[in-house]
Amino acid sequence: MSNPITFYFDFSSPYGYLASLKIDALAARHGRDVNWRPVLLGAVMKITGTAPLPNIPLKGDYARRDFLRSARLHGIDFRLPSVFPIASQAPARAFYWLDQTDPARARQLAAALYRAYFVDDVNISNPEDTVAVGAAFGLDADAVRAALNDTAVKDMVKGEVDAAIKLGVFGSPYVIVDGEPFWGMDRFDQIDQWLQTGGW
Amino acid sequence: MSNPITFYFDFSSPYGYLASLKIDALAARHGRDVNWRPVLLGAVMKITGTAPLPNIPLKGDYARRDFLRSARLHGIDFRLPSVFPIASQAPARAFYWLDQTDPARARQLAAALYRAYFVDDVNISNPEDTVAVGAAFGLDADAVRAALNDTAVKDMVKGEVDAAIKLGVFGSPYVIVDGEPFWGMDRFDQIDQWLQTGGW
Repeated sequence: MSNPITFYFDFSSPYGYLASLKIDALAARHGRDVNWRPVLLGAVMKITGTAPLPNIPLKGDYARRDFLRSARLHGIDFRLPSVFPIASQAPARAFYWLDQTDPARARQLAAALYRAYFVDDVNISNPEDTVAVGAAFGLDADAVRAALNDTAVKDMVKGEVDAAIKLGVFGSPYVIVDGEPFWGMDRFDQIDQWLQTGGW
Repeated sequence: MSNPITFYFDFSSPYGYLASLKIDALAARHGRDVNWRPVLLGAVMKITGTAPLPNIPLKGDYARRDFLRSARLHGIDFRLPSVFPIASQAPARAFYWLDQTDPARARQLAAALYRAYFVDDVNISNPEDTVAVGAAFGLDADAVRAALNDTAVKDMVKGEVDAAIKLGVFGSPYVIVDGEPFWGMDRFDQIDQWLQTGGW
């Protein structure tokens, strides 16, 4: 498949997690591949001046309820992690390190990291927890550990996040289809229509 | 019809406007009436510490694009007003004043005010513009003007907004169905399912 759509997500984002379980099938229905790109919403929030969703009065309470309700509606395993939200540098670095050589496997690693955080309550912001998820996934633990501390990998993540922000990415999930941006899992119906019709 | 669902909206909210053209039909499909309740998001934002959507870097640009795209998708007349966002005390006061004696007509007035702002580019934050919309709608201009300056009406609006905030309302549209809250027009599909099934 060619001409991929781009799927931006943060490893700390519940809606990103839910979307990650839907995006490939959505794209495949239209013969499209998906380019998975983790971002760091912490960096974005410095620009937008916004706070993490669960920390906002009124909205945070609603969000916690909506995460669970949306997961139930879609039949997706989900629990609110004990520590939430988290900084997501460690999983993002592991992803981009693997993505250099094997994008398909990096995507599977992302699924494993998301599942560890949102189902098994593993705090993947801890480098050693991300290393453990990688090792259980079949990667060499020492290699993952080295990647998390590699300046080149850190710079690569920063570059990816900067590039995403330049394209206007401010949330998770955020999908770009042929230049057209869609924010939120609740735009997936519109993405489906856009891919079908070419826009309106 | 009885056992209404409650529809909270701000007269300055594009998504509230779009939702106002859909909510009655959605409720009617399930034999339910709609209790229309304007709120003042300016008061809410003091609590949530958030800024008006169009003023947020990155997110504001996306929102302006999404308003138009969503309106086109739903086949709804919409233009971004010259002055946006606005304080919405004047239209909210006109609404609640009429709602005391004739809720059905107040709902029609709300539709006329929304249309004036989002189709005809009338700045309804100006009391005299809200008076003019009311007069064109068939109300007595002097009576509307007096209502906008009536301390009892002002207090009624404050009371309604305070009551909404106590229930957790932080956005527009915000719908409560049998105690269950739904934020955003993109939750209308879930509202439909909730009304159908009683929840999940």
